[in-house]
Amino acid sequence: MGSPDRGELVRELRAQMREHSLDFYLVPSSDDHQNEYVPDCWQRRRFISGFSGSAGDVLIGLEGAWLWTDSRYWLQAADELDDRVFTLQRSGADGVPTIEAWLQQHAAGARVGTDPRVVSSALARELVALLEVGGGTLAALELNLVDAIRPQPLGLPAGAASALELQFAGESVADKLERIRSCMAERDCDALVLTALDAVAWSFNVRGRDVDFNPVLLAYGLIERDAARLFVDESKLDDNVREHLRSAGVGVEPYSGYSAALRGLAGSVWLDPATASAWVAEQVEQSAARAVREPSPVARMKSLKNATERDGMRAAHLRDGVALVRFLHWLQSAWQGGALDEYTASQRLDELRASGEHFRDLSFPTISGFGPNGAIVHYRVTPENAAKIGDSAPYLVDSGAQYLDGTTDVTRTVHLGTPRRIEQEHYTRVLRGHLALRHTLFPRGTSGAQLDAIARRPLWEAGLDYGHGTGHGVGCYLNVHERPPTIAPRATTGGLEPDMVVSNEPGLYQEGEYGIRIENLLLVREVASGFCEFEDLTLAPYARVLIARDLLSEQEVGHVDDYHARVRSALAPLLDEAARAWLEAETAPL
Amino acid sequence: MGSPDRGELVRELRAQMREHSLDFYLVPSSDDHQNEYVPDCWQRRRFISGFSGSAGDVLIGLEGAWLWTDSRYWLQAADELDDRVFTLQRSGADGVPTIEAWLQQHAAGARVGTDPRVVSSALARELVALLEVGGGTLAALELNLVDAIRPQPLGLPAGAASALELQFAGESVADKLERIRSCMAERDCDALVLTALDAVAWSFNVRGRDVDFNPVLLAYGLIERDAARLFVDESKLDDNVREHLRSAGVGVEPYSGYSAALRGLAGSVWLDPATASAWVAEQVEQSAARAVREPSPVARMKSLKNATERDGMRAAHLRDGVALVRFLHWLQSAWQGGALDEYTASQRLDELRASGEHFRDLSFPTISGFGPNGAIVHYRVTPENAAKIGDSAPYLVDSGAQYLDGTTDVTRTVHLGTPRRIEQEHYTRVLRGHLALRHTLFPRGTSGAQLDAIARRPLWEAGLDYGHGTGHGVGCYLNVHERPPTIAPRATTGGLEPDMVVSNEPGLYQEGEYGIRIENLLLVREVASGFCEFEDLTLAPYARVLIARDLLSEQEVGHVDDYHARVRSALAPLLDEAARAWLEAETAPL
Repeated sequence: MGSPDRGELVRELRAQMREHSLDFYLVPSSDDHQNEYVPDCWQRRRFISGFSGSAGDVLIGLEGAWLWTDSRYWLQAADELDDRVFTLQRSGADGVPTIEAWLQQHAAGARVGTDPRVVSSALARELVALLEVGGGTLAALELNLVDAIRPQPLGLPAGAASALELQFAGESVADKLERIRSCMAERDCDALVLTALDAVAWSFNVRGRDVDFNPVLLAYGLIERDAARLFVDESKLDDNVREHLRSAGVGVEPYSGYSAALRGLAGSVWLDPATASAWVAEQVEQSAARAVREPSPVARMKSLKNATERDGMRAAHLRDGVALVRFLHWLQSAWQGGALDEYTASQRLDELRASGEHFRDLSFPTISGFGPNGAIVHYRVTPENAAKIGDSAPYLVDSGAQYLDGTTDVTRTVHLGTPRRIEQEHYTRVLRGHLALRHTLFPRGTSGAQLDAIARRPLWEAGLDYGHGTGHGVGCYLNVHERPPTIAPRATTGGLEPDMVVSNEPGLYQEGEYGIRIENLLLVREVASGFCEFEDLTLAPYARVLIARDLLSEQEVGHVDDYHARVRSALAPLLDEAARAWLEAETAPL
Repeated sequence: MGSPDRGELVRELRAQMREHSLDFYLVPSSDDHQNEYVPDCWQRRRFISGFSGSAGDVLIGLEGAWLWTDSRYWLQAADELDDRVFTLQRSGADGVPTIEAWLQQHAAGARVGTDPRVVSSALARELVALLEVGGGTLAALELNLVDAIRPQPLGLPAGAASALELQFAGESVADKLERIRSCMAERDCDALVLTALDAVAWSFNVRGRDVDFNPVLLAYGLIERDAARLFVDESKLDDNVREHLRSAGVGVEPYSGYSAALRGLAGSVWLDPATASAWVAEQVEQSAARAVREPSPVARMKSLKNATERDGMRAAHLRDGVALVRFLHWLQSAWQGGALDEYTASQRLDELRASGEHFRDLSFPTISGFGPNGAIVHYRVTPENAAKIGDSAPYLVDSGAQYLDGTTDVTRTVHLGTPRRIEQEHYTRVLRGHLALRHTLFPRGTSGAQLDAIARRPLWEAGLDYGHGTGHGVGCYLNVHERPPTIAPRATTGGLEPDMVVSNEPGLYQEGEYGIRIENLLLVREVASGFCEFEDLTLAPYARVLIARDLLSEQEVGHVDDYHARVRSALAPLLDEAARAWLEAETAPL
C-alpha cells in the first residue's frame, strides 16, 4: 500500500499557505470538539505528519516543519516521522521550548494560520497575544488547509446514539438540568454552551458510537433557562432516543444549526474557554450576548460520581477483574512454545473482556508490550510490529473497557520466568509509590501536584522517575481520560474531592529493556472531618514474582496482603477451578 | 494615647471617594516597591484599618468596609479590627471569595479607585479585566486618598546605604551586570526595570536601612545595554558607597527622576508585572519603548546562591545556632519563679543574637508564643500583651537575624515541664513531616507543590494539617522571604534548583491551646544525574522531651540522631560549659 509521501504533502500545504499569505500553519492534534480520539474525518495532524499518537501538534513553516509531543510519544514519533520533513520537538525535555515559546522566538512579525474550529478559545487568545508582541498575527481561516489538499473529503461519523437508562445514569436529565441551571443562576448566566462531547452525553443521558473508545455522539448542546437543545444529525437517533429526549424536554436541532443558534443568543452566555473552540467563541461574540468565560460546571458535576455510578463502577471492575485474571492465568502457559506475540495476547484479553455482561467497547487500545516495547509508554501493537512474548523480560499490559455501568483502566506488569534482581527492585519501587498514594489520607481539595510526589518518592530515593503524570480522572461509561481530576506535577487546579475517580499509575521505563507500570483506579471517599481516603476499584493481583519482599516495610507487606485478600475473595467465586487455584497462589500472604 | 477612631477615618475617606466619584477604594497591603515590610510613610492599610499584620488588603465601599487576610492573621485581625466598621474576610476559608471574585459579584458597573503605585501591574490588569466584564472601571488616581486624610505627611525613610564587599557578595557588580545583560540579549531587550528593593540591592551589591528587617535601600534601578542607573536619594550615600557605585559604572540619579527616565526609554523594556507597579508600567507605556512583561531574571539569579554566599550562610547559621542554644539553655531555668514573659524572653534572644559577629538586625520580629499564643501563626508580642512563660504548655519561638554574611530563620518549639502525650504526638508528627521533606531526594526542578505534600503526609495520616505553606525562599543578607522558591500547595512555577535556600517549617496549631512549628533552612544541592538533596543550614536541637520515640521509625530515629550529632559537634566548641552540657544531653542519641 505504501504510506503517502509527507514531503510532497507538506509541499502542497505550503502552496496553500502562500496562497493565503501565511508564514506558518498550525495543525493541532485536536478537532472541533477537542476530542482526544479524533474521528478519521478530522485526523489532519496524522494525515500531514504520519504521527498517529493521541497528542502532538504540528507547525508547518515555509522552510521547516515540526511536531511537538510529550515523553509518552517520543519513541513512537521518532519512529513514525520522516525526519527529512519533520523535526521532532520533545515537549518537556530540557531546553525544548513549548510551541508558544518557539513561536515567540521564531515567528516575530509572522502571519500564523489555523482553523479556529480546532483550537480552543483559550489557546487562540494566548496565540493572538503572544504573536502580537512580535508584531505578528493569528489568521483564523474558514478553510482548513489540510482538508484542502486531502484527496477526498471524509464524511462525519454516523454512529447510532442510545439513551442511557436511569438504572445506569443514576440521575435523570431533568434533575441534571435543574442542577446545571442553578449553577447558571449563581453566575447570572442565561445560557450554557456545551461543546465537549462527554459533557453533552452526560447532561442528556445519551451515548454514541462516533468516536473510538469514547461512547459519545457528535453533538453540541445548549442549555438555556427554559430550554435544552441538542444539535445532532437526526439520523443517529432512533425512536427510543427521540422519546427519551422528548420526555426530558430536550429539543433536537441539526448539528449544522449550532452556529445560527449561538448567533441568536442574548443575555449572558457561559462558555468554557478550555473546551469551546475559537470558532464557537466567535459565534457567541457575533451575537447580542455577552460571553462569560469560566470552566464549565458540567465538568465538575460529571467528575463527582453519584451512588448509582459508584456502584456501577464497582460492578464493572468486578467483571473486568475476572477477565484480566483469566488472561493472566492463561498467559502463564500460553507463552510457552514461542508462538504467542503481543498482538495475539491483546486479542485474547480483548475477547475475554468482550464476553462480560454490559461490555460495549474497549476504553482505549490495549497496550501490550514485552521487554523493550513495554518502555514505550503508549505502545500501539499491530500484527506487523508485534514481538514474541517470552520469559526473558517483564511484560506490560495496560487495558480497559467500556461497560454500560462503568469504565475501567488497569495496568499490570508481569514476568513469565525468573526476574533479575534489578527488575524486582524497580518493580518494588513502583509498587511502593503506588501503595503510598493509595494509602494517603488527605484533606478534601488537595491538589494533584501535591499527591503526585507521594507516588514518586520511592523512585526518587533511587534517583529514578517517570515522565508521565501519576493519575487522570475517569468517566463512568464515558471517556477514560476525564478532567478536571489530575494527579501530575503541575496540576494545581481542581483538587480531589469525594466521589471522584482517578487512576494511580506510577511507572518506570528502561529504554531498550523493559517498562514497568502498575495502575489501579481509585474512588475518593470522605472520611471524618474534611479528610478523604481512596478505595481501590481495580481488582487484580500484583505480580508476586516481581516483588522483592525484603524491600517492603511491614506496613507495605500488610497493604499488599490486604489488597490481595480482597481481590481473592471478590474474584475467586467467579473463576473456574484452574484460574482460581492460580489466583489463590498469586494472592497468598507475602 | 488612644487609638484613632476608624469609623471617623473611614467616613473621611468616603467623603474623598465621593469627591472622586468612586464606589469603592482599594487599599492594598503593599507599597510602591511591593515591600512585605512597609515603611511607616506608606502604611496606609494599617492607618485606615488598625490591622498591623504583614499581609491584608482593605476595600472601602460607600456602605461597607472589608479586610481580606490569610489564615496566619485571622486571629490577629479579628482582635485588631473594629467590627462595627470592618468585616473580616478570611482568605482561603470555605465559601470566602477572593477580593477579585468579591468585586466581580458586588461591583458590577462600579468605579473602583486605587493608587497605581501600590498595585502591581499584573493585579491592575486583572482588576481592569474583571471590572470591565460587569461594566465597571478601575480608576488609577494620582492622589492616594488615605494620604489625603492623614494628619501630616510622613517623609520617605532616609537610612544610610552601604556597599556590600566582595568577600560577602561573592560576585562583583560588573559580573552581575554582564550576566543580567546576557539574559536581556537573549530576550532582545534593551533595558531592564528594577523595582523590587532586594533586586536593586543584589544587582548593585548595596544594602540599606530603609525597611524594617530587610537590609535594603529605597531605590529604583535601570539596567541598559551600556548603562546601569540607580535612582536614590543622594543623602543616603556616603563617599564609600559613591566610590563603589562609580567604580562599578553605576550612575546615580535622584529617586524622583525615575518617571522621567522611564518615559525617555526606547526599544524593548523588560518589566516584571508581578513586582513592577501599574504606575511604573504606565511610565514605560508612555515612552517610545515596547514593554516586555516577563518575570525578572534577577529574581532567579538572586535565588541561586554563589559559593561565597553558601559559605556565608553556613557561617551565619553557626553563630545563630550558638545564640539560639544559649537562649534555650538559659530558658530552662529562667522561667522558674514566674517572672519571665514572652516579651522579656524574646528580648534576651535578640540580645544573644546581637552579640554575634557580623550581626546587623533581626530578619523579622521574633515570634515568642507560649501556650495559646503559639497557635497565632504570626503572633507579635509586645510588653503589654506578653503572657508569662511556664511549664504547662509548649512554647514556640520563631526568630532570625541578618548578618553581613547571611540571613537566618529558625523555629523551635519546646516544653519546660512534662508534656502531655497528645503534645508529644503532635510534635512528633510535625517532626516526621519536617524530616521527611529534609530527606527527600528529588529531580531538579521539582515544584514546591509536589514537595509540600511530603511534609504534610504524617499529619494528614491523623486527619491534621496546617494552614500555611511549608517553605519560602530566603535571601543572603537580604529579605527573609524571597521568591521564586516556594514550597506550598499551589506552588507550581519555579521549581527547586541547586543552590537555592528554602525553609522547611511544617506546624500544627491547636487554637486556644498551643502551637507547634519546627523550622530549619535548607540548601538545595545537586547530587548525581539531575537529582537534588537538601543540606540543613540551621543548627539547633529538636525538643527531646516532646519527641515520642515510639512513633518514629528506626530510619527517623537515625535522622534525628545524625542531625543532633552534627549540631553537637558544630556548636559544642563555641559554648560555655553549662550550655555545652545541656546541649550534649539534649542531643544524645534518642
